Amino acid sequence: MPDIVTAAMLVIGDEILSGRTKDRNIGYLADMMTAIGIDLKEVRIVPDEEDAIVSALNEIRTRYTYVFTTGGIGPTHDDITADAVAKAFGVPCEYDAKAYALLEESYARRGMEFTEARKRMARMPRGAEHIDNPVSVAPGFRIGNVHVMAGVPSIFQAMLDNVVPTLKTGTRMLSATVHCPVGEGTIGGPLAEIQHRHPDTIIGSYPKYGEGKFWTELVVRARNPQALEAARAEVEAMVAGLNPTA
Amino acid sequence: MPDIVTAAMLVIGDEILSGRTKDRNIGYLADMMTAIGIDLKEVRIVPDEEDAIVSALNEIRTRYTYVFTTGGIGPTHDDITADAVAKAFGVPCEYDAKAYALLEESYARRGMEFTEARKRMARMPRGAEHIDNPVSVAPGFRIGNVHVMAGVPSIFQAMLDNVVPTLKTGTRMLSATVHCPVGEGTIGGPLAEIQHRHPDTIIGSYPKYGEGKFWTELVVRARNPQALEAARAEVEAMVAGLNPTA
Repeated sequence: MPDIVTAAMLVIGDEILSGRTKDRNIGYLADMMTAIGIDLKEVRIVPDEEDAIVSALNEIRTRYTYVFTTGGIGPTHDDITADAVAKAFGVPCEYDAKAYALLEESYARRGMEFTEARKRMARMPRGAEHIDNPVSVAPGFRIGNVHVMAGVPSIFQAMLDNVVPTLKTGTRMLSATVHCPVGEGTIGGPLAEIQHRHPDTIIGSYPKYGEGKFWTELVVRARNPQALEAARAEVEAMVAGLNPTA
Repeated sequence: MPDIVTAAMLVIGDEILSGRTKDRNIGYLADMMTAIGIDLKEVRIVPDEEDAIVSALNEIRTRYTYVFTTGGIGPTHDDITADAVAKAFGVPCEYDAKAYALLEESYARRGMEFTEARKRMARMPRGAEHIDNPVSVAPGFRIGNVHVMAGVPSIFQAMLDNVVPTLKTGTRMLSATVHCPVGEGTIGGPLAEIQHRHPDTIIGSYPKYGEGKFWTELVVRARNPQALEAARAEVEAMVAGLNPTA
């Protein structure tokens, strides 16, 4: 039996919902999860509002093996992720001694004042463990199955590199792509029959459109390489037998 | 009193969650909603699974003025959005006579067979109204406050152009950006005080990082232009008074 490990992502930030900032972390996490054998099953984007964060987090953290959050862990008043995560877990949000010392030392070394705002970045839910931040010192954290990371893509990616080795992973989902020169309508019938004959695979059909023409990418996914190859071969034979003007 | 109209988006598709396709519709919808005065308050991405679509849709459609979905309305077996939306509303999913005729005529004109797969694109929840598709004929649809659109960005955008004039809009959220040459830690304290003095605005602080340097974009948002200007002026004065080496 394949081993299934699931994940959800919670993107926190008004700036994504207003369109001001275009998210670049969802696709990055999705690629990483696929590569290591974790199924990303849901993503939610919520505003910088405590109730929205708490209720989304409490819904998804019980439903999936892991949760990854991005955004809202900086030093300003709109960075409320640590407080919201603490509230979701029912624990106090307080200065973490190790994070406080780390930040204090870092600012002292750079001759910068350790302001009240900067001290905010040392606040974490009680019991949280650090996720090291090699870019800008202020750590993310893990509590339970929830990994809280920065929204700035370069920092998020560096934190995720530190998280990945700690994760339990499942049987990787393999995939094979078959290019189909015609639109979905022509192949929808036979493709559904192939899917029906290969229930241990997931066959996706992705319509593409450009320069006035349609084509389709057919993607077969399976955790078992033999199952993948059997379905892929049928899809390829089906496409090879097409009349391209039909 | 400002008039508040809210929206949520439901992105449907395994290919987004696997990372194979990078979503380009969330940012587009976010920009459009901001431009016309609708607050996008939540986005969810779910797989091509009926239960996931039905439960997400039933949660968000009661919570926001409008819902916009993308993906899963094509002719193949993995296009299950119409069925899932019908199930969420508790109505049958059936051939829509107008959509059927439109598609039949379109394929006849192009000398293409109106296959069973293509006929699937004429299926809609009973009572749904068309959203015209000027790109590839097969319509999207609206039922209740839910607008069901294609996932292919050019088709989604064309459908959205047809939806926008039908929407009730609210008082537009205005915004002003102040560039801040230093990181968030320096300005976090005074910025929180400005936010506190201007509760009718939303002041966001967005850390930027590149080439080894931090800087910050400060964004003031408000529906009232006087409130916006008052807070913006204070943020600008605060930034002007900074010691850039602090």
